Amino acid sequence: MSNKFRNQEANAHGHGYLPGLAIDAVIFGFHDNQLKVLLLTYKNTGLFALPGGFVHDTEDVNEAARRVLFDRTGLTNIFLDQFYVFGDKSRHDTAPLKAIMAVRGVTPPDDHWLLKRFVSVGYYALVDFTKAIPTPDSISDSCDWFGLDNLPELMQDHNLIIKKALETLQANLDQKLIGFNLLTDDFTMGDLQSLYETILNKKLIRAAFQRKILGLGILERTAKKWTGGAHKAPYLYRFISEK
Amino acid sequence: MSNKFRNQEANAHGHGYLPGLAIDAVIFGFHDNQLKVLLLTYKNTGLFALPGGFVHDTEDVNEAARRVLFDRTGLTNIFLDQFYVFGDKSRHDTAPLKAIMAVRGVTPPDDHWLLKRFVSVGYYALVDFTKAIPTPDSISDSCDWFGLDNLPELMQDHNLIIKKALETLQANLDQKLIGFNLLTDDFTMGDLQSLYETILNKKLIRAAFQRKILGLGILERTAKKWTGGAHKAPYLYRFISEK
Repeated sequence: MSNKFRNQEANAHGHGYLPGLAIDAVIFGFHDNQLKVLLLTYKNTGLFALPGGFVHDTEDVNEAARRVLFDRTGLTNIFLDQFYVFGDKSRHDTAPLKAIMAVRGVTPPDDHWLLKRFVSVGYYALVDFTKAIPTPDSISDSCDWFGLDNLPELMQDHNLIIKKALETLQANLDQKLIGFNLLTDDFTMGDLQSLYETILNKKLIRAAFQRKILGLGILERTAKKWTGGAHKAPYLYRFISEK
Repeated sequence: MSNKFRNQEANAHGHGYLPGLAIDAVIFGFHDNQLKVLLLTYKNTGLFALPGGFVHDTEDVNEAARRVLFDRTGLTNIFLDQFYVFGDKSRHDTAPLKAIMAVRGVTPPDDHWLLKRFVSVGYYALVDFTKAIPTPDSISDSCDWFGLDNLPELMQDHNLIIKKALETLQANLDQKLIGFNLLTDDFTMGDLQSLYETILNKKLIRAAFQRKILGLGILERTAKKWTGGAHKAPYLYRFISEK
């Protein structure tokens, strides 16, 4: 929702934007065995929301999503994909929008375009959260990483959107592995197992994990890691670039 | 597109529908080792299109998709899922819409709602095509199954939509198997292999296929098929209902 109100409050008709269509971005952050999600807080309302926005009538829907990701994190060239369209009529709830506008001293007319029913295209991304620069927009007072075990109650159906995004992230993780580009440098099998365990939120058996991953044929072994204790040094791997 | 124009041509503002949002349904039909897709032909225009429609402001987007599927096939309780949102600005092409309306003697004003930019939510389903009753709408003169190897050129980006739907259907077929509900009665391993081979459009090795499928743990063996030549009779299987 971050950009949704910037420069648009005076425009009750939403000219320049596709009507009734929003984007919500579930930006997962991973680092050091932690998985988090990026959330905005709206000033003086106690409302939490996913970053999001609207689609300019001169841009593709996917472009709008990349713009939202960049505006909130400074990141580009990140795997970002649609995962679901949230289009139930029951999600039409004008109360939070009115509250956010009220804090800014705006009382919108009943036919204000932002109060109409919106269908939202959900996108998800997975980034190294130490590389992102969380950036609130002009009407939110913070943009922060929240642990998935510790989410606040979010506005509208945003908790559901995160749940569905997490299921999408967890499903067929093997096939997404390279695209996420999270482990760009050489890594150990242990690093990769930690990534899996964090995303799947469960412990995996080391031997079975290694056998499965090597069976995918997407890794190549590079060199021994030097740790000082040579007999314990694990192998290093990298993704085969041409797969 | 099937229902898109019914009862709406006189309504240049599209009241009662969500603005700028369409649904396109890729309905795959399977039977006897053939995979087809359902297409409409628009009268006297030579235009082919996917079945589709718009979303009433009183219904969920997913409900609208089920309505389209029912209207065009008579089928309910079918696995039907979103697979992608087609939202590029380049897909805005008013020529085919104007041609379809022109055949009906309608010259729409330039600001007619149907001539605005639409974002389309793509849905796909897989049905037994012998159980569907293809039903054209009031302005198409036919609704027919077309072989995937033999598709006509479709309006707008509908060929691309089919391509993407097919990729979705082919990916992770194992996980979709039960949901499709295509093999409801007992079936042989050969029946199942034929289904896979047809959808994936390639031959599979029998022993490897059987090993993989049984490894999924979703089948149970029922009884020997009686064919008259008992020593050749294949086993029958069914899906384990509680998985």
